[in-house]
Amino acid sequence: MSQFEEKTVSSKTIFNGRIVQLVVEDVELPNGSKSKREIVKHPGAVAVIAQTDDQKVILVRQYRKPLEKEIYEIPAGKLEPGEEPESSAIREMEEETGYTCGSVQHLVSFYTSPGFSDELLHVYVATDLVKGQPHLDEDEFLEIEEVELNEALQMIQDHRIYDAKTVYAIQYLQLIQLTQK
Amino acid sequence: MSQFEEKTVSSKTIFNGRIVQLVVEDVELPNGSKSKREIVKHPGAVAVIAQTDDQKVILVRQYRKPLEKEIYEIPAGKLEPGEEPESSAIREMEEETGYTCGSVQHLVSFYTSPGFSDELLHVYVATDLVKGQPHLDEDEFLEIEEVELNEALQMIQDHRIYDAKTVYAIQYLQLIQLTQK
Repeated sequence: MSQFEEKTVSSKTIFNGRIVQLVVEDVELPNGSKSKREIVKHPGAVAVIAQTDDQKVILVRQYRKPLEKEIYEIPAGKLEPGEEPESSAIREMEEETGYTCGSVQHLVSFYTSPGFSDELLHVYVATDLVKGQPHLDEDEFLEIEEVELNEALQMIQDHRIYDAKTVYAIQYLQLIQLTQK
Repeated sequence: MSQFEEKTVSSKTIFNGRIVQLVVEDVELPNGSKSKREIVKHPGAVAVIAQTDDQKVILVRQYRKPLEKEIYEIPAGKLEPGEEPESSAIREMEEETGYTCGSVQHLVSFYTSPGFSDELLHVYVATDLVKGQPHLDEDEFLEIEEVELNEALQMIQDHRIYDAKTVYAIQYLQLIQLTQK
């Protein structure tokens, strides 16, 4: 048992959407006092770090409604019910970028925002890429961009790359480049 | 104007909580078709990467209700209304760990989960630390842990460290260590 456990006293589902579920829980804190927790439940997601043969990073540019702007991200998507993260990573990569990959390796998984959400993101590294045609859902609008690592670092500076998984991915590629030198 | 812009047709606030607000928007996609977006609004947050004089990473262990478990994270907290991210970083660091810092430098900011939330996290690096006593809110329960970088890497493997900002922070420290060699 956890020393700091917060026991659920009651739980109320406020919203049950297509992507997220919002639950508000009354909890008992370790000192016996009461508090509330607002929890956004999410099915989980996958993201793929991939470089072309000439070491360019594969990014997708898309509009993100919560931010009211376009940003560049590594290929990613939410898990479908019952889907294995690895299959999901291969599928998202192929749908969004057209690239099929000979191999994907799990790199790391992390909660994106553990203070209020249970979204778990699984990050993969794809290799042995073969270029093909993207096949997007009819409600999906995005464009592929392949950029040098130095350009990606600049894109972080000027906020064209502006999300956790992609900033992490670029830092990972920096680290790999340094290690291989 | 963005090529892929999704225009808001109507917007409904489902929940207005202490931390998050949930909004559902009817949007018009670039091809004219309609869709819905579920958006979790968040005040934003700060996190602090800090090492002790003997190069140990400062982590806090706390219970995260959305995950129903304890994890180790770098010191962090949400922005208070009107608060500057830098002041918030210094305040959170001091409250949670007792350490005051001679200097904080902004490292990067990123959206934690741009698919469904506008939470923007500002990451700082704190230096010139002076140890003091933590002063937690009465509803805040956490414990400080100072670990070697190698131990932190092991903690990522066995999911004691399990969140985006902390995984990013550890990778940053790896990168710095390699660059300085």
